[in-house]
Amino acid sequence: MANRKPYQLVSREWKKEDTTFEINGVCIGKDLVMIAGPCAVENREQIFTISEYLSKLNIKFLRGGAYKPRTSPYSFQGLKTEGLQLLREAADKYGLAVVSEIMGLDKIDEFCEYADILQVGTRNMQNYPLLKALGKSGKPVLLKRGMSSTIEEWLLAAEYIVSSGNDRVILCERGIRTFETATRNTMDIAAIPLVKILSHLPVILDPSQGTGLRDLVKPVSLAAIAAGADGLIIEVHNQPEEALSDGDQSLYLDQFTDLLPNLRAQAHLRKKHFDFESSYEFSNLS
Amino acid sequence: MANRKPYQLVSREWKKEDTTFEINGVCIGKDLVMIAGPCAVENREQIFTISEYLSKLNIKFLRGGAYKPRTSPYSFQGLKTEGLQLLREAADKYGLAVVSEIMGLDKIDEFCEYADILQVGTRNMQNYPLLKALGKSGKPVLLKRGMSSTIEEWLLAAEYIVSSGNDRVILCERGIRTFETATRNTMDIAAIPLVKILSHLPVILDPSQGTGLRDLVKPVSLAAIAAGADGLIIEVHNQPEEALSDGDQSLYLDQFTDLLPNLRAQAHLRKKHFDFESSYEFSNLS
Amino acid sequence: MANRKPYQLVSREWKKEDTTFEINGVCIGKDLVMIAGPCAVENREQIFTISEYLSKLNIKFLRGGAYKPRTSPYSFQGLKTEGLQLLREAADKYGLAVVSEIMGLDKIDEFCEYADILQVGTRNMQNYPLLKALGKSGKPVLLKRGMSSTIEEWLLAAEYIVSSGNDRVILCERGIRTFETATRNTMDIAAIPLVKILSHLPVILDPSQGTGLRDLVKPVSLAAIAAGADGLIIEVHNQPEEALSDGDQSLYLDQFTDLLPNLRAQAHLRKKHFDFESSYEFSNLS
Amino acid sequence: MANRKPYQLVSREWKKEDTTFEINGVCIGKDLVMIAGPCAVENREQIFTISEYLSKLNIKFLRGGAYKPRTSPYSFQGLKTEGLQLLREAADKYGLAVVSEIMGLDKIDEFCEYADILQVGTRNMQNYPLLKALGKSGKPVLLKRGMSSTIEEWLLAAEYIVSSGNDRVILCERGIRTFETATRNTMDIAAIPLVKILSHLPVILDPSQGTGLRDLVKPVSLAAIAAGADGLIIEVHNQPEEALSDGDQSLYLDQFTDLLPNLRAQAHLRKKHFDFESSYEFSNLS
Repeated sequence: MANRKPYQLVSREWKKEDTTFEINGVCIGKDLVMIAGPCAVENREQIFTISEYLSKLNIKFLRGGAYKPRTSPYSFQGLKTEGLQLLREAADKYGLAVVSEIMGLDKIDEFCEYADILQVGTRNMQNYPLLKALGKSGKPVLLKRGMSSTIEEWLLAAEYIVSSGNDRVILCERGIRTFETATRNTMDIAAIPLVKILSHLPVILDPSQGTGLRDLVKPVSLAAIAAGADGLIIEVHNQPEEALSDGDQSLYLDQFTDLLPNLRAQAHLRKKHFDFESSYEFSNLS
Repeated sequence: MANRKPYQLVSREWKKEDTTFEINGVCIGKDLVMIAGPCAVENREQIFTISEYLSKLNIKFLRGGAYKPRTSPYSFQGLKTEGLQLLREAADKYGLAVVSEIMGLDKIDEFCEYADILQVGTRNMQNYPLLKALGKSGKPVLLKRGMSSTIEEWLLAAEYIVSSGNDRVILCERGIRTFETATRNTMDIAAIPLVKILSHLPVILDPSQGTGLRDLVKPVSLAAIAAGADGLIIEVHNQPEEALSDGDQSLYLDQFTDLLPNLRAQAHLRKKHFDFESSYEFSNLS
Repeated sequence: MANRKPYQLVSREWKKEDTTFEINGVCIGKDLVMIAGPCAVENREQIFTISEYLSKLNIKFLRGGAYKPRTSPYSFQGLKTEGLQLLREAADKYGLAVVSEIMGLDKIDEFCEYADILQVGTRNMQNYPLLKALGKSGKPVLLKRGMSSTIEEWLLAAEYIVSSGNDRVILCERGIRTFETATRNTMDIAAIPLVKILSHLPVILDPSQGTGLRDLVKPVSLAAIAAGADGLIIEVHNQPEEALSDGDQSLYLDQFTDLLPNLRAQAHLRKKHFDFESSYEFSNLS
Repeated sequence: MANRKPYQLVSREWKKEDTTFEINGVCIGKDLVMIAGPCAVENREQIFTISEYLSKLNIKFLRGGAYKPRTSPYSFQGLKTEGLQLLREAADKYGLAVVSEIMGLDKIDEFCEYADILQVGTRNMQNYPLLKALGKSGKPVLLKRGMSSTIEEWLLAAEYIVSSGNDRVILCERGIRTFETATRNTMDIAAIPLVKILSHLPVILDPSQGTGLRDLVKPVSLAAIAAGADGLIIEVHNQPEEALSDGDQSLYLDQFTDLLPNLRAQAHLRKKHFDFESSYEFSNLS
């Protein structure tokens, strides 16, 4: 925690109070947010089935990839515009807000039309022309940490967006690349409280990308909330074994359902509540 | 999670039930354990002051380095035998068990005389002659993860101890080495639930070494318990700013006191209790 | 070296002979190429001074950043269009080809007008929309390895370009991110011969970015040629201590001059010659 | 290259001239040294066959593991004392010096009896009791870099040995652990010239451990000499496909033979000669 920090607008020194902003009735940065959905939009039935399920659980944010940044040019690249349109339709029907990844600055208008939060993926965290364009887009941005980016570089990427005129930025820790191969990435849990010290921006965690193994999603999600995260983004699929991408790390619907009360209990320990909690009472905690 | 695992005796396949064993009245592996104390034993007053303090909080395990593995030969190397003797004296007076790091196999007898749990440090995780000797020592072993060891290598190091005749092994995640320099190491939180799936051995977490920053010790400790850890080992000092080693990561005594009820609440969510909890009642959690 | 490789068109299995193509009279992939110049174009005097110097040494390729991907939004971002124009003017006057980094797909036309080789920087190695656009641009591409990209991911990034219709791709190893902080990055020297086994594409090395220290540029450059590299890209500045970016890793002009005969000797050991060698004779080597 | 260095006796500031010392007629630190042999001593026939072969090539140093630090307790652990005795016998018959790895300080006397250079493996680089004991042993030490050790930590490990009274230390870069899995480790080629700037100690490179792939041994060996290394340690086996350990990275005998003239040519470029060169003439190099 060096004294002279290279970022300004995103720092706690610049602004002491937590940044908060409302999307779909949820006050991000104050209430804990849950974003859920499939890795990729695959077809109408899939995204409507999942959206209906999420809405019954009172989830407010739907994630889904329309443009997929795949390591191989021969892998499924997403449904593109059609994927965004399906997301919008399903979200409108079930009262959800749409979170989807934008890969190129030529798609800004399209994403502004169909999505509510524009996600910057790990490979584009230092795509500065894109960051600047998002700074001028007026839309909330979910900024994933680069897979080998330091916390300082991550905050500087956020500074690119904020200094371009947009302070509605949600940071997202999604695991970093290390020598360990037992998990897909290494979740940097200490980054959560450290970012909360260094910055006023909300920070959430992606346990699906971070671990790559669905059995680790629950314990890591609980850990994230215990450590002070402002929310989670979790991959959920109605048929993970049939998923076109990242099936191994997607929760079954009933696993996701089972996770929610445990998260609520964690939230209560912090005297916070999750956006999916319809009624809310403090429990007495010592 | 490959199918054919190179370790056997430490695997869940070999033994389905959690390994548990009693030390100083605490059932390790069943109850959650708290090990606290200074990085290094510095003098009689220091270790007795801290020990008295811990005993008042009902802490049962005292950590303290007598032989210190320092990166530089010119740094404080520990009080050695005298340090072990001071630990033993203080522990006996205040009802504590002693946890201390052994660096060489020529010191086995000395450690068996003075310590209750023999700690293998991160630099010695693959010191196989030492591991084999500890396997024959009859003493419980706290095996820290090597700073660049995979989970598989870590479990194989434990296999060295267990296959030499000693199954009282406590694994300890202490952070791994990555490109990130904002924290001393990167806490691999997902390693906790993954090890619990792969092995029946208890696993604890060291947030002090793992983060290197005292302000991160509390949130990371809570995260560890939320993720399923069997306990914690935490550096506490009566005068951190005067500490001969690792002062920046040592908690002040009142910070440590403040941490305990929060940990207790986390334990209750898992229907577990910490060894420092004298009375114990389940709260109703959904 | 797994048997089933996820890339095809860039693989040795697909095409046994080395890919070669001519730019500015040099047969890339056959002759060894030297690309030199400043990190960033700063002003007319700087780029013309350096270009004149390089042309006297018979260097054929001028590098220079016009759009700079800087970690901080407050750092010098490059002269942009003006920088590209200055590069073109200087290159035309001194018989050089221009190599410059493109950051966004909205600049393809501009770069096609002013540059001869379009460089993809380490932060954009997985900017797939950009890679696809470059595949259709018809211009040679210099593809830097991502700072935390595996060799497989790097070759798959090249596959994106080649499968989009452009097989004039030069790979560039520029160091990877590791725990070591003594150098700016860690040069992965083994990547050079490994890529030559796996792929038919030419591969060069950037010792300036890779080490971050000008005193290491010479030995690492010699090592790269010894290991089989098809060339080098080196930062050279007429006044490194005044440079607006990366001065510490830029060679002084006389250091660069001194390097050349040593590189020529290395080339002769491989029975190759560098593009700056005007006359050329094999020495007898056992 | 920070100004205040934590090591002293091993630094260039302390001693400007290169450290040199003679073993088996070779002036280490002045002449380039070649250490070759199998990963592990397996039986009499194997070690005598390889030793005879090496002696015919005028190689002066035989490597071979007698005590093997294996990740699994169930892997071949070496022939132990018998292995050391076989090494000594073969070495004496064929005029070789013995290099072998010592894992525990209880074996110092045994190694002093049978070996000429005591190797500290990567897992023991920070085994400080062992380093101190080696500092008092009076025997030359080959100190491998820890697989996740910084250059500073490596030099401090050497400082432990030198400050204990032994300045005959050879540093050995053997690759570091990174995210890249295409090679066993990542060879840090820049560490060679950087260590030569920072320290007066000789530094060699192990391309076998460093790459894990025999096809990369030749190019990486040539690169090491081009970058300024004082020698190499290479795994050679008469039947690699039958080797009890590390067969994939061991050179066939004829591959090793083929490597030597190429290394000699590299040495000549530096106006150095290798210990296996019986006659020696400078070629004229510009």
